[in-house]
Amino acid sequence: MITNDKGLLLVISGPSGTGKGTVCKRLLEKNENIFLSVSATTRKPREGEIDGVSYHFYDEDKFKNLIAKNQFIEWAAFCDNYYGTPKAPVEENINKGKDVLLEIEIEGAMKVRSKYPEGVYIFLFPPNIETLADRLRGRGTETEDVIAKRLERAKQELEMCTKYNYYVVNDDLEKAVQEIEAIIVAEKARKERNKVNFN
Amino acid sequence: MITNDKGLLLVISGPSGTGKGTVCKRLLEKNENIFLSVSATTRKPREGEIDGVSYHFYDEDKFKNLIAKNQFIEWAAFCDNYYGTPKAPVEENINKGKDVLLEIEIEGAMKVRSKYPEGVYIFLFPPNIETLADRLRGRGTETEDVIAKRLERAKQELEMCTKYNYYVVNDDLEKAVQEIEAIIVAEKARKERNKVNFN
Repeated sequence: MITNDKGLLLVISGPSGTGKGTVCKRLLEKNENIFLSVSATTRKPREGEIDGVSYHFYDEDKFKNLIAKNQFIEWAAFCDNYYGTPKAPVEENINKGKDVLLEIEIEGAMKVRSKYPEGVYIFLFPPNIETLADRLRGRGTETEDVIAKRLERAKQELEMCTKYNYYVVNDDLEKAVQEIEAIIVAEKARKERNKVNFN
Repeated sequence: MITNDKGLLLVISGPSGTGKGTVCKRLLEKNENIFLSVSATTRKPREGEIDGVSYHFYDEDKFKNLIAKNQFIEWAAFCDNYYGTPKAPVEENINKGKDVLLEIEIEGAMKVRSKYPEGVYIFLFPPNIETLADRLRGRGTETEDVIAKRLERAKQELEMCTKYNYYVVNDDLEKAVQEIEAIIVAEKARKERNKVNFN
């Protein structure tokens, strides 16, 4: 009576220090139907990084060729390197009924949104600003000055939350993951995503 | 950092024979935070019906007086009796953070929707038309002619589904209830229902 064959495009963003990586890792562990989109880059692999898992490592010619062929959902250049989200694996998996997860920063997410308004855009919040500051501090040996700058940037990023559909607070990891799982179930039940056969 | 104090208005409809009553009963058993709205009527109580539980049984003067005071979210007259959804308990519970469940027929739901567009409108489907016919048949000793008329009406009601936000198929009771629970969690995470404090 009701058919819904396509998977969802799930885009999860949030300021650094929010714990996006941990939330996405747990979500993938628990849900075999979610496919993680792997970004492409022209930067050199760091120790321990695996081609096709951490990133797709491409040389600049190949990357530029893929840009010319419109093979990225979004791409950008930072510090002389290119970064992008390859289009084919995203669309193929969605058409197969898999949900595709993009864990990307806010600017990239906004580019994706302009092309895929039907995607599900989830903004991950830290429990509060103090926790965010602690997490940014906990990362290494940076000076308070560097941390203050990062915190300022994180606060600016937080203000982009209104461009997303859903707000999830990463206070308790399991609870945050369960909320994202509920969002997936609910989105699949939305009228717009279902075809009804009245016979 | 994020606040969402209000409960949801949940409206569940579907053609007769879909199993709305069973789904709502199970949903209420599992979720203490859901308050069931009790309809008011001027018809006489049937055996076993309890005032305030099955219905609020009012006399016609009281009912008309409440209509005049705009104390119903929606009301209608059938077969010389009035039926309506009292406004105060719905609004009081939502403001207290309780989710309020209205199990009402489609015409009433559409009236509610015109006043409460922020409500969550869920349309319950039977697994297929054959099951619906079997359930309508199973009710009693009606002739095939009566059943055919009911089925025709149910099919017309099905076409109203597009006025709702979500489609849930009542194939497996527990699965249908879990989907509604996921919709509740997801709706509470929607941007529009949350206030963000950036400090």
